Amino acid sequence: MEKITLGPVPYMSVMPTLLVGANVKGKANYMTAAWATVACMAPPMVCVALNKARYTVKGIEENKTFSLNIPSTGQVVEADHCGLVSGAQEDKSEGFASFYGKLKSAPMAKECPVNIECRLFKSVDCGSHLLYIGEVAEIHADKACVTDGKPDVVKIRPIVYAQTTYFDVGKQVEKAFSVGKKYSKK
Amino acid sequence: MEKITLGPVPYMSVMPTLLVGANVKGKANYMTAAWATVACMAPPMVCVALNKARYTVKGIEENKTFSLNIPSTGQVVEADHCGLVSGAQEDKSEGFASFYGKLKSAPMAKECPVNIECRLFKSVDCGSHLLYIGEVAEIHADKACVTDGKPDVVKIRPIVYAQTTYFDVGKQVEKAFSVGKKYSKK
Repeated sequence: MEKITLGPVPYMSVMPTLLVGANVKGKANYMTAAWATVACMAPPMVCVALNKARYTVKGIEENKTFSLNIPSTGQVVEADHCGLVSGAQEDKSEGFASFYGKLKSAPMAKECPVNIECRLFKSVDCGSHLLYIGEVAEIHADKACVTDGKPDVVKIRPIVYAQTTYFDVGKQVEKAFSVGKKYSKK
Repeated sequence: MEKITLGPVPYMSVMPTLLVGANVKGKANYMTAAWATVACMAPPMVCVALNKARYTVKGIEENKTFSLNIPSTGQVVEADHCGLVSGAQEDKSEGFASFYGKLKSAPMAKECPVNIECRLFKSVDCGSHLLYIGEVAEIHADKACVTDGKPDVVKIRPIVYAQTTYFDVGKQVEKAFSVGKKYSKK
């Protein structure tokens, strides 16, 4: 297969569509983000990259807390809206029914099936973006989206983000830590 | 919708399945990882969290370079195998046809449709895991998987990782930075 080079660009195959929640000037604000993942097992941590100019950044810096909220494919209009309009222009606090957990200052969107409540661990200045690493204080989930005590991807129907497009999660291909046992050297 | 708490656990809705490439003791090694995302737009950066005990960690620390290789769903057996067996136990250098790019020391798996070549920018000690942030030196891609100069998710068919299961990317739901225009306040 012939390889070509596409230049040094920020690329990842697939990413989660999220709403980053933070209190800015005492009001809940939610912004759409996709540059996020798990950062650590113990203690449990997640990270999310935000452009320094984002309104949400003010709230994270002020409270040292934030949330990552997982919208369902049925909430794609609301989710995308939070990426089109800045909290500096529009009060987005009424867009979702906010609730607060252990940390008291990280607003979470009740309508989203899963909410990750985070205490800021560290922020890394990468250039245009700050990479916020947060320790997970608690996972909140809709009871109907949980199976055997864990969030269930089939029930949640999270939105996969790739190349400025939202996708559904498709069919199960294989089980991890399992199918590789079929491997044999060529 | 009733919310329940699931404890402070490392959770993310969906993640990319990747092979992290690094030269360890002069030999190419590939390990499966999913805790990765984009970390910055300018300069372009990606990040990946690796358990400190991983063999691959030695290679990244030694060379200050690594690669993220995107396998296709058709390569799920090979991809999962690299997560089941450590390079400390098995020489995985022959599992893929390795090639090198600008950085000379970050091996990339030719069989994977997209390869992200990275120069280590910073590592963050989060506890059990190190979060490696790398500046993208170059994106290499199979010519057949590129549309209009960009990697094409439909042609690549990357593996979505969620709750220890590999999934296909599903159907397109909507276009981002667009569908949110339909939003109206309730």
